[in-house]
Amino acid sequence: MMDAVRNADIRVLEYSHSAGNERYRKKLSEYYLRLGITVSPSEIIVTTGGSEAIVFAFMACLNPGDEIIIPEPFYANYLGFAVMAGVKVVPIPSSIDTGFALPPMEDFEKVITDRTKGIVICNPNNPTGYLYGADELGALRDICLKHDLYLFSDEAYREFCYGGEHLSAMRLEGMEQHVVLMDTISKRYSACGARLGAFVTRNRALYDAAMKFAQARLSPPGLAQIMAEAAVDLPGDFFDGPRAEYMARRDLLVSRLNAMPGVFCPNPGGAFYAMARLPIDDSDVFCQWLLESFNHEGETVMLAPATGFYATPGLGKNEVRLAYVLNLPSISRAMDCLEAALKVYPGRQ
Amino acid sequence: MMDAVRNADIRVLEYSHSAGNERYRKKLSEYYLRLGITVSPSEIIVTTGGSEAIVFAFMACLNPGDEIIIPEPFYANYLGFAVMAGVKVVPIPSSIDTGFALPPMEDFEKVITDRTKGIVICNPNNPTGYLYGADELGALRDICLKHDLYLFSDEAYREFCYGGEHLSAMRLEGMEQHVVLMDTISKRYSACGARLGAFVTRNRALYDAAMKFAQARLSPPGLAQIMAEAAVDLPGDFFDGPRAEYMARRDLLVSRLNAMPGVFCPNPGGAFYAMARLPIDDSDVFCQWLLESFNHEGETVMLAPATGFYATPGLGKNEVRLAYVLNLPSISRAMDCLEAALKVYPGRQ
Repeated sequence: MMDAVRNADIRVLEYSHSAGNERYRKKLSEYYLRLGITVSPSEIIVTTGGSEAIVFAFMACLNPGDEIIIPEPFYANYLGFAVMAGVKVVPIPSSIDTGFALPPMEDFEKVITDRTKGIVICNPNNPTGYLYGADELGALRDICLKHDLYLFSDEAYREFCYGGEHLSAMRLEGMEQHVVLMDTISKRYSACGARLGAFVTRNRALYDAAMKFAQARLSPPGLAQIMAEAAVDLPGDFFDGPRAEYMARRDLLVSRLNAMPGVFCPNPGGAFYAMARLPIDDSDVFCQWLLESFNHEGETVMLAPATGFYATPGLGKNEVRLAYVLNLPSISRAMDCLEAALKVYPGRQ
Repeated sequence: MMDAVRNADIRVLEYSHSAGNERYRKKLSEYYLRLGITVSPSEIIVTTGGSEAIVFAFMACLNPGDEIIIPEPFYANYLGFAVMAGVKVVPIPSSIDTGFALPPMEDFEKVITDRTKGIVICNPNNPTGYLYGADELGALRDICLKHDLYLFSDEAYREFCYGGEHLSAMRLEGMEQHVVLMDTISKRYSACGARLGAFVTRNRALYDAAMKFAQARLSPPGLAQIMAEAAVDLPGDFFDGPRAEYMARRDLLVSRLNAMPGVFCPNPGGAFYAMARLPIDDSDVFCQWLLESFNHEGETVMLAPATGFYATPGLGKNEVRLAYVLNLPSISRAMDCLEAALKVYPGRQ
């Protein structure tokens, strides 16, 4: 990918098309086709990271005052983008006891109002690592069709599934006019800093509305498009190594956590996150205590308090999110730390 | 700039700081200091193009329903960003007869309401090329202080001033809490596709509010920051060549236009645009006719109808914007084309 940038013959680094270079969109459509997703280059808007795809989705599909339902815990920045669009986020809780499976459809039905315009899912999920199955996506399809809702599907972690197959919302039959895919190259090529993503929909009116926002900001980053175009031609087994590595990390992390007294960590099916319930009073206090007042052989461990991923106040107080983005020996040491910390933490419950 | 990217030792292209790499912000503060603008790296948020700087400015400083005053004609995308922020644009006309000088302060006073929160200027101006003088900036300072308004200053074309000195709004005394600078590297280094800009303010509360939007979208583009950091170390005379070239183009364009019967083009002091009044019925019709129904020795000329730069319906119907981004022989041929076209255009007035 870097070689493609180094070797690019750039005389003027000009604006690309507002939807992204056509060459790159063609490549991206090849990439999707390999995953069983049939989209044409004219159904793709290349965005500045997955972030901008979310902004375009909210801005193009929703009016101020509209409501979107999101199973919580969820990626906290959805809230920021909802504020930008003047949209109200309506959370419905998923539970660690079911491994953060999709809440039952009755829970969705209960909160649907005449302002409800869509449902946001992240699959596999950040922060829970949960991978939604065909039955859950089918249930989402039914409710979206019944109430005429958009399904906003954030599939940033698509390549990181362990065991189960990833089912893209773009493959749901009869949902062509309802699905907006929000994508990014950040995770799949470990290229977060490139800031390149995609807004994808087969709904022409939505696409045209999103293009107005795309045109206002002129174009997505140019050098990143050169990188990402080259990335599509990486060997077919490119993801096998990282996937095996992450799976080994997950297995180590989850087994170590569940071996600690009072700790429960459901086995995540994808992404590189796990949520754990700990025997603690308050995850914000605990995480701060770990950084400021604890060490184990001169080291400590940094966890994300789960409270930041819940919109409902009070939820997540005894849960934390762990990112298994360290190598196996470091994860092992981190688990030693956590185990030792839980034994002496003053707020242990 | 490209060498800096080619030689960068990037093992993981990770997120930068949400405000941009500190190294780059330090360099950018050196760049500003050379221009007499004293800002610290902690007063700069690196953005994805000047576009995102405008979005951050509107989102951080304004609530839905607030009003901003913009002298028209103005950069059309301000309207799109205002729609995103739910903000109302209140245009006040400037006139080609005064070369698009800043409208008198009475015109501003007339439209100020209790919802008015700021004034947007582009200096030097796109689309008019007008360069605001010290007296005009002083008048803007007075009115902003009197009514407690923000001054949003878009200085994308700072390096392209012909004769007059550029006075940045950041240098206005007593305006430290009121000025937001919206900047970009697109024009000064001919690197539009890099998508790198800056939101700059000394107002700490505004900065902190803008940082929330910056954090939601994680970071600005990484490769572009490497390019732009290297650009600050370009030789001090780097801009002399392009400036002389653009000035020669402007002189040719303006003198050719004013030599045509019925045409008037005020001499722009900066940027690389000129607005001309033509003896025509409708600039949209004329520009389309040029592309579809006219040729001069097998060539034609593409102009931007001025109507798109006015928010008030009906204005700009006999004006066009010309971008002198072609070399001198091409500009000369373009003027031959335009001259010939005006002689035979059926809607000539």
